[in-house]
Amino acid sequence: MASPGSGFWPFGAEEGSAAAETPGTARAWCQVAQKFTGGIGNKLCALLYGDAEKPVETGAKAAAPGAAEPRPTCTCDKKPCGCQKADVNYAFLHSTDLLPTCNGEITTMSFLQDVVDILLQYVVKSFDRSTKVIDFHYPNELLQEYNWELADQPQTLEEILLNCRTTLKYAIKTGHPRYFNQLSTGLDMVGLAADWLTSAANTNMFTYEIAPVFVLLEYVTLRKMREMVGWPGGCGDGIFSPGGAISNMYAMLIARFKMFPEVKEKGMAAIPRLVAFTSEHSHFSVKKGAAALGIGTDSVILIRCDERGKMIPSDLERRIVEAKQKGFVPFLVSATAGTTVYGAFDPLIAIADICKKYKVWMHVDGAWGGGLLMSRKHKWKLNGIERANSVTWNPHKMMGVPLQCSALLVREEGLMQSCNQMHASYLFQQDKHYDLSYDTGDKALQCGRHVDVFKLWLMWRAKGTTGFEAQIDKCLELAEYLYNKIKNREGYEMVFDGKPQHTNVCFWYIPPGLRGMEDSEERTSRLMKVAPVIKARMMEYGTTMVSYQPLGDKVNFFRMVISNPAATHQDIDFLIDEIERLGQDL
Amino acid sequence: MASPGSGFWPFGAEEGSAAAETPGTARAWCQVAQKFTGGIGNKLCALLYGDAEKPVETGAKAAAPGAAEPRPTCTCDKKPCGCQKADVNYAFLHSTDLLPTCNGEITTMSFLQDVVDILLQYVVKSFDRSTKVIDFHYPNELLQEYNWELADQPQTLEEILLNCRTTLKYAIKTGHPRYFNQLSTGLDMVGLAADWLTSAANTNMFTYEIAPVFVLLEYVTLRKMREMVGWPGGCGDGIFSPGGAISNMYAMLIARFKMFPEVKEKGMAAIPRLVAFTSEHSHFSVKKGAAALGIGTDSVILIRCDERGKMIPSDLERRIVEAKQKGFVPFLVSATAGTTVYGAFDPLIAIADICKKYKVWMHVDGAWGGGLLMSRKHKWKLNGIERANSVTWNPHKMMGVPLQCSALLVREEGLMQSCNQMHASYLFQQDKHYDLSYDTGDKALQCGRHVDVFKLWLMWRAKGTTGFEAQIDKCLELAEYLYNKIKNREGYEMVFDGKPQHTNVCFWYIPPGLRGMEDSEERTSRLMKVAPVIKARMMEYGTTMVSYQPLGDKVNFFRMVISNPAATHQDIDFLIDEIERLGQDL
Repeated sequence: MASPGSGFWPFGAEEGSAAAETPGTARAWCQVAQKFTGGIGNKLCALLYGDAEKPVETGAKAAAPGAAEPRPTCTCDKKPCGCQKADVNYAFLHSTDLLPTCNGEITTMSFLQDVVDILLQYVVKSFDRSTKVIDFHYPNELLQEYNWELADQPQTLEEILLNCRTTLKYAIKTGHPRYFNQLSTGLDMVGLAADWLTSAANTNMFTYEIAPVFVLLEYVTLRKMREMVGWPGGCGDGIFSPGGAISNMYAMLIARFKMFPEVKEKGMAAIPRLVAFTSEHSHFSVKKGAAALGIGTDSVILIRCDERGKMIPSDLERRIVEAKQKGFVPFLVSATAGTTVYGAFDPLIAIADICKKYKVWMHVDGAWGGGLLMSRKHKWKLNGIERANSVTWNPHKMMGVPLQCSALLVREEGLMQSCNQMHASYLFQQDKHYDLSYDTGDKALQCGRHVDVFKLWLMWRAKGTTGFEAQIDKCLELAEYLYNKIKNREGYEMVFDGKPQHTNVCFWYIPPGLRGMEDSEERTSRLMKVAPVIKARMMEYGTTMVSYQPLGDKVNFFRMVISNPAATHQDIDFLIDEIERLGQDL
Repeated sequence: MASPGSGFWPFGAEEGSAAAETPGTARAWCQVAQKFTGGIGNKLCALLYGDAEKPVETGAKAAAPGAAEPRPTCTCDKKPCGCQKADVNYAFLHSTDLLPTCNGEITTMSFLQDVVDILLQYVVKSFDRSTKVIDFHYPNELLQEYNWELADQPQTLEEILLNCRTTLKYAIKTGHPRYFNQLSTGLDMVGLAADWLTSAANTNMFTYEIAPVFVLLEYVTLRKMREMVGWPGGCGDGIFSPGGAISNMYAMLIARFKMFPEVKEKGMAAIPRLVAFTSEHSHFSVKKGAAALGIGTDSVILIRCDERGKMIPSDLERRIVEAKQKGFVPFLVSATAGTTVYGAFDPLIAIADICKKYKVWMHVDGAWGGGLLMSRKHKWKLNGIERANSVTWNPHKMMGVPLQCSALLVREEGLMQSCNQMHASYLFQQDKHYDLSYDTGDKALQCGRHVDVFKLWLMWRAKGTTGFEAQIDKCLELAEYLYNKIKNREGYEMVFDGKPQHTNVCFWYIPPGLRGMEDSEERTSRLMKVAPVIKARMMEYGTTMVSYQPLGDKVNFFRMVISNPAATHQDIDFLIDEIERLGQDL
């Protein structure tokens, strides 16, 4: 743990107090593991005891150089022991001893197995509440703590394994049940397995020729997602893109092309001045996209929201009319289903009516809220999404798919292709021997495109739609539990009234010293500092993490979000206790 | 293997002939493996024998439901056997039995271990020349062969493992020594390990807060890459982006912003008409980017190339002058270091002089050729790159890093940030307790950004710069071997004269029936079909894969590229034999 020493810490740092790595859980599990035959019990125990975080003990290895030195059968009675492993001496091996080198099979398998053992241990620890969420160090400390530099000469495989351990030692455990910091949390085991397979398959999405299965799975999965959106028969188009911001940019790009296809060749100079509309609570990527596409951020008009963060349709209509009167061309409304901070759902039906009336492309940014389409109980919040022309939906958020997995869905088929295609003859040969409609790469902005679909597909097979539903319903139930717990609790103020629509719960913690104070400049300036200080302390202790931010005229407040299926009521209770423990003196 | 039956196959399909999976190699290796104690020998043998491609034998499993049923120590003398594994009966288990479920540790570890075993077997097979590069099936066949659909109800973990096996059965072995189809080939073991770790860490690059190590490693690695480019002290800026096309688009975006910063707010309407220049052999992403950014493809002027595919500087200067005379504003020259088809290097010094003279941003698209900077023998081909304002360099191509890994390097620090930042207060809080210069997310177009740096960093540690150099020099040497082999060989015509500059070797194979023919329309129309038919047959046999395309007035020719360190002289010989075997009757 980093030494705080940065001025704001009023009492001694209780080194490791909340995150002491007691082997209690490990011991209990080890007893279970020992029922396994064939040595796997010992292996499991070794993993559970977590000796992988210790530095590699070179001394314990055979000193002779060369790969794969066999050694006599172990007769030790100390458990756990490493007898089950091939005793490969990594101190004398390099990456050049691995495949594709001649006779590299055994060294390779041992090396990859050892990496996997390190990862399995990390995975198990991620879910163990007695471990820290983060072992926080300041950037300069971390740079000095270890030599991260790149050199001319190779390192041994022993050093490579040590690099892996060190990297994980300082990583955030994003799967930890008490990590609430982002919209993407959790670590799904089937998703992880699928991502490992994706890495081993190491291919690109641009043609059926080099990614036959993945191209078909993208087809199957996007169709299913369009069905969930409510487009008849799942018809339409789509793509997995590198994140919600890019998906939103795609939507803007396609909407512009639909209205003025000449923009592709002639650019913005050839078309009238466009304007887009989105709410003041929408994601910053709408403006970012407008800047990139040459539309300009001034042409993104921010529509007012009600006190819950939902776009006000009458204000939207007023601003559209106003823009038209100025001679501008409204081409896109980006509604939000699940805003980033409040988790608000814009009123999609009213917005759809306005888009229809003024013939404007309706995009729904459901990056965060799209997952609720999987829930029979909650999907009404997205009513009207079926009238959208395009939808962003990030399974790597509420559905817990490993990063990255973001889908852009488009109602009109073929538009993406016309908008983006450049007919590269070295990739999209027209005289191939198979059905060329499966060469989908030319509809993307990217050329090479990472395989993001497999983890979603495999998780969907493993859980079924009902499994995703249960997972999502549980997170929403937990958010409601938190809301009920703090709404009338002393020392808490809600940022907005009423039950949360998504899992976002926004609140101020008011430390005892501020509770009696009148609303004043002093109170505001002290309240502003509460969340950042508590958050900093959380990170230094490593016990939990939750986000905070200011918004408009509201000073820093906590934004709690729950997307991790590992979280329980007790973890919510823990968070509240921790906020109070760390904030009592402020 | 798919039944050809598509009309162009003149003789019987020799089922599995070239790709018969003889267990000879496996047997030899198994003997070595048996030297290992503690059962790992048997496990290695099982993997080497490749029984993972057989469907899961449910019958052989214990019938009792529930997790982790222990069974008595195995006494069988049949090797390999599965005795070393915990006998978890996946037929009765679901993803809900895995972590984070209570007591899910052992089931989880067994499941992930079984997935890893499937992957290890795939990895070992990938390098085995007796296995097919691809088990090709037409899209409709593949859709029918297996049920890929997504359902409401969950599948068992047994079915999930089967899904993994099936997916890999039909995947392309992109690491196979005879897979030459794309610029990205090969499967690096350290890179694979690093990608597995990245998946387990499952985080996002936007802030130091949630990716402390990866943010620092991106900083260290980009600085090192800028040093290799030749910028003093490695100064400058950069980012890992989702592929070369996006990196090139970034360059265009930043170049535009540098010249007209008001474009961010006001859009293209507020600035003069811009024009960009790139060669006729450049990558299509330059035009794709111009279309997206609202510049328009008509404003990308294609400069003529010499017969080797290099941009002609005098033509560039002429077109810049011409554009200025028309009142347009030249803002970007995108030179190419390693063109996609010919592997040509534009003359960067001459282009830099012109860019300087006319004050135009010089971008170098070194997506493919950038890797040669690692080679003391070949880096002169990029002389002048140090004068560029920005550089695209894809380590996932010539350096063999797993997909995706593309860097955009920018000489001027801070420009990316000014160009793209939107100050989202929920991510980039200004009152955090650590040095905010490490929160680099706001310089990206993306919000969430996949961790692409770790695999490059770990491979660099494992190989050292000298290891990358050796790997790259070897591929170039192989390309020269191929060139020397076919340049005067009967039945071959080179597309351009002279030794290849990169590993691209472009040639026509002239089947015996065409060799005597005069240059005529008939010959051209028959020659045009040769490469596609040979390629289709290669895929149906699954023996090797190489790309082809037409270019300008040149009909379909083979473009051989070598980026896979697994390839040898024998593999080059095999490719030539295979082309001749499959093309003799055409």
